[in-house]
Amino acid sequence: MTWSEFQFKFQHIRDNKLFELFVITVIILSSLMIGLKTYDLPSGVMTFLWVMDYAVTVFFLIEILIRMAAEDRLVDFFKKGWNIFDFTIVVVSLIPLDDSQYALIARMLRLFRVMRLISFIPELRVLVSALISALPRMGYVALLMFIIFYLYAVIGNLLFAQINPTLWGDLGISLLTLFRVATFEDWTDVMYETMAVYSLSWIYYLTFIFFSAFVFLNMMIGIVVEVLDEEHKKMIALEEEVASNEVMAHHEKLEREVADLHRKIDVLIQQSSKGS
Amino acid sequence: MTWSEFQFKFQHIRDNKLFELFVITVIILSSLMIGLKTYDLPSGVMTFLWVMDYAVTVFFLIEILIRMAAEDRLVDFFKKGWNIFDFTIVVVSLIPLDDSQYALIARMLRLFRVMRLISFIPELRVLVSALISALPRMGYVALLMFIIFYLYAVIGNLLFAQINPTLWGDLGISLLTLFRVATFEDWTDVMYETMAVYSLSWIYYLTFIFFSAFVFLNMMIGIVVEVLDEEHKKMIALEEEVASNEVMAHHEKLEREVADLHRKIDVLIQQSSKGS
Amino acid sequence: MTWSEFQFKFQHIRDNKLFELFVITVIILSSLMIGLKTYDLPSGVMTFLWVMDYAVTVFFLIEILIRMAAEDRLVDFFKKGWNIFDFTIVVVSLIPLDDSQYALIARMLRLFRVMRLISFIPELRVLVSALISALPRMGYVALLMFIIFYLYAVIGNLLFAQINPTLWGDLGISLLTLFRVATFEDWTDVMYETMAVYSLSWIYYLTFIFFSAFVFLNMMIGIVVEVLDEEHKKMIALEEEVASNEVMAHHEKLEREVADLHRKIDVLIQQSSKGS
Amino acid sequence: MTWSEFQFKFQHIRDNKLFELFVITVIILSSLMIGLKTYDLPSGVMTFLWVMDYAVTVFFLIEILIRMAAEDRLVDFFKKGWNIFDFTIVVVSLIPLDDSQYALIARMLRLFRVMRLISFIPELRVLVSALISALPRMGYVALLMFIIFYLYAVIGNLLFAQINPTLWGDLGISLLTLFRVATFEDWTDVMYETMAVYSLSWIYYLTFIFFSAFVFLNMMIGIVVEVLDEEHKKMIALEEEVASNEVMAHHEKLEREVADLHRKIDVLIQQSSKGS
Repeated sequence: MTWSEFQFKFQHIRDNKLFELFVITVIILSSLMIGLKTYDLPSGVMTFLWVMDYAVTVFFLIEILIRMAAEDRLVDFFKKGWNIFDFTIVVVSLIPLDDSQYALIARMLRLFRVMRLISFIPELRVLVSALISALPRMGYVALLMFIIFYLYAVIGNLLFAQINPTLWGDLGISLLTLFRVATFEDWTDVMYETMAVYSLSWIYYLTFIFFSAFVFLNMMIGIVVEVLDEEHKKMIALEEEVASNEVMAHHEKLEREVADLHRKIDVLIQQSSKGS
Repeated sequence: MTWSEFQFKFQHIRDNKLFELFVITVIILSSLMIGLKTYDLPSGVMTFLWVMDYAVTVFFLIEILIRMAAEDRLVDFFKKGWNIFDFTIVVVSLIPLDDSQYALIARMLRLFRVMRLISFIPELRVLVSALISALPRMGYVALLMFIIFYLYAVIGNLLFAQINPTLWGDLGISLLTLFRVATFEDWTDVMYETMAVYSLSWIYYLTFIFFSAFVFLNMMIGIVVEVLDEEHKKMIALEEEVASNEVMAHHEKLEREVADLHRKIDVLIQQSSKGS
Repeated sequence: MTWSEFQFKFQHIRDNKLFELFVITVIILSSLMIGLKTYDLPSGVMTFLWVMDYAVTVFFLIEILIRMAAEDRLVDFFKKGWNIFDFTIVVVSLIPLDDSQYALIARMLRLFRVMRLISFIPELRVLVSALISALPRMGYVALLMFIIFYLYAVIGNLLFAQINPTLWGDLGISLLTLFRVATFEDWTDVMYETMAVYSLSWIYYLTFIFFSAFVFLNMMIGIVVEVLDEEHKKMIALEEEVASNEVMAHHEKLEREVADLHRKIDVLIQQSSKGS
Repeated sequence: MTWSEFQFKFQHIRDNKLFELFVITVIILSSLMIGLKTYDLPSGVMTFLWVMDYAVTVFFLIEILIRMAAEDRLVDFFKKGWNIFDFTIVVVSLIPLDDSQYALIARMLRLFRVMRLISFIPELRVLVSALISALPRMGYVALLMFIIFYLYAVIGNLLFAQINPTLWGDLGISLLTLFRVATFEDWTDVMYETMAVYSLSWIYYLTFIFFSAFVFLNMMIGIVVEVLDEEHKKMIALEEEVASNEVMAHHEKLEREVADLHRKIDVLIQQSSKGS
């Protein structure tokens, strides 16, 4: 067989629905195996899982090689973001770390195989792309939110560091404490502690909660409005085009008829002027 | 009386508004009785409730038999989902478990009679159907959310199992702990515990909260947009049809008039050419 | 002066903007006084507040009598819901309870004067009317939510009453505990306690949280969609009316012109047939 | 060089993109420096930061003087709100408080330099303006919410002050406790404490949570609807204008043609009457 015959066969395999389903099954099984390992298991099962792990690694390698070989040029394979994503996950899980002290890292790297589910199910791929495209919309609001957090974190550190260094010791810890307050997680404990020293410090917490909640709510509303507007613009444009196409067809018919009238009356005028 | 006369009578009973109201009253009363039993009651009342319970069981049996008999063919009865729902509840509560050690299960099965309220009030039926039809819309986002939870649960188990086995002991417990973190329920207690060992583990919690909140918010927004779009498409189509129908009526009148003009001018041309 | 002259004067007072502003000021002052009393105050201020309280009671009585006298017929006064609201508050605060053991109730009744602010500021009146009109929309969803709570409360009581009677002792307490779980308030404490006995009881809590959150979210989305649809229907109808009015005006002008053409050609045909 | 030549140069500097970028960099660096000071640092770094702080103060002074000088008239500079904002921050950070006991206040004032980021990044400026313009929309709902809080705070103080003066001692503390309940922060602890005395006090908490959540949700929905309506009114008006402009152009063409027909037929009638 020549190379192009091989390539044709690989394309055939790659585009086969059954093969795709089999790959998804392997991904799910390998994910379940990773989850199973978190339980205390008899050593027999452990050995079985260890062997299966190797088998999955080899299978994923073969699968990605088939997909690479199926492309006319190797460069085309790396042009799709999801292929690079797949390739990285497969390659990274090949690194032989099991025997060394990096066993933990090795297990984590293999964990990312679960994410291949996203690249294999088209609906999830669309969803993730949509989520990523929603990120920039949030960019400047996130920056504004960060400025609010930053301001309050420095103020909190200046005022409360002496009271409780565990919560307000430096900027990083203060930011974490503020995030805790923003999630309403035992925020009154934090507040009552500082109110014992500065009785007016409730102002600090209440204004922070108001500001951050207010900015967050407005961000939410802003996104809903923006997304809806985009959808509506498309939709209304479409609907109106359909509606006005119909109206226009009638108009054009009328215009043709009136033009016909003109032609006929011109004939009449000619005849009449001849007649007179 | 023949069977069809009986059947006619049963249909009459079934479609009677008063009978329906009576059934709803019995359902509500039997629900209240179930609730009443959770309180300490004098034995006289207990006996009364026990007798009433039997009466309700018998009444529900008769009621469903009437509805079954009222159908021309028995198969038609089982074609409606809500009938199967009703039938199952009634049959299941007939199982004689009171004397045995399964008394608890028997009481629970009888509890599901409360749900017959849903099948009897049309507005609730519509509501539940709408909720069920909203489920698939959430399907893939739920899958994506599960992948995020799964990834973080395994990582959490790998990193934190030694620190607190009660929270991170295996995959199941880790998933439960993450659900707790996602509801912001004492999540800082969980975090501070692991930060004592790995001081950077706040990254794990913050990224998890951001990812899950972000996916959740986008799901919410997505559903609002989708539902609104569907509604609008219907509405705008309707409104535009009405509007363009009116415009079209005028157009057609104009077209008829212009066609009339054509006819008349044709006559004129004929006369004129004859005249000349 | 005759009665109708008095009545005219009363109407003049009632509709005076300055008088209205003065009443609002008195309402706010009396509200602040009620709040002030919650602090430890020197007896001199206490006596002053006590005197002012009497003055406010008398002033409100006079004010409502003026508004009643200003109506042509007394019945008209009671036709407006907000008047009945005002009247009840004023009359109830007249009940002399100060010296008796009902001082607490007397203070509470006088507290409701704060709510006169709502009946006096038109924007708040509109807002409250809108809120009340939003209630029925929530009716059936609230009923469905209650059925879910009821079911879970009885199951919770059956399963967990032995474990912690303070939380699951009877139906009422179980409902309160479930409301607590629904607000995510220390819900894991409740869960971990029962998981110590029934290790699978997390299913109970997770399904409850999912069901109640799911129904709640769908209710929210449903309301947003419904409100938006109403608004849009009005708006689009309006806009299209304006737009089609314009189109219609042009159509009618065209139709008149074409009718004119008919008339003229009829003349021509007549002349032509005469001429030939 | 004359003054106007200087002024021209200043305008050149002010409008230079590179200069703007440099100012933003200085703002970010000075913000990072403020954050860095919250950590324990070797005295060498401290001195460096102290010097840098001076340098930044001087740079900001020069920068704002350049912008002031670049205006044709100084009054124009103070006509923009953001310029006043910048000017205040720069002037306030000039106050020499470092050596005195007001060092804390001095550090806080200098902190507000972080907010210059908002005035320098146009997108953030737009965002903040939008947030401020959203405030009045919330005004009356906030007032209604405050009335609910006020009513419940006074009732809470009347009923529960004896039980726990730390939570219900006076109006202010009661309001803070209610805000805590509204954020669901350990609200059951507050409730269980009062339920031990008044077993029906759960009614107080549940109605408060329902009222405040209900008003809050309706406010949210109201804002979404209002914002969307505004956007749609603009959009639909625009789209319809475009659509009807097109229709109108056709109409006017038709009208012109029909007017032409009139003219021609008038000629015919004239000829015909002459001919006959």
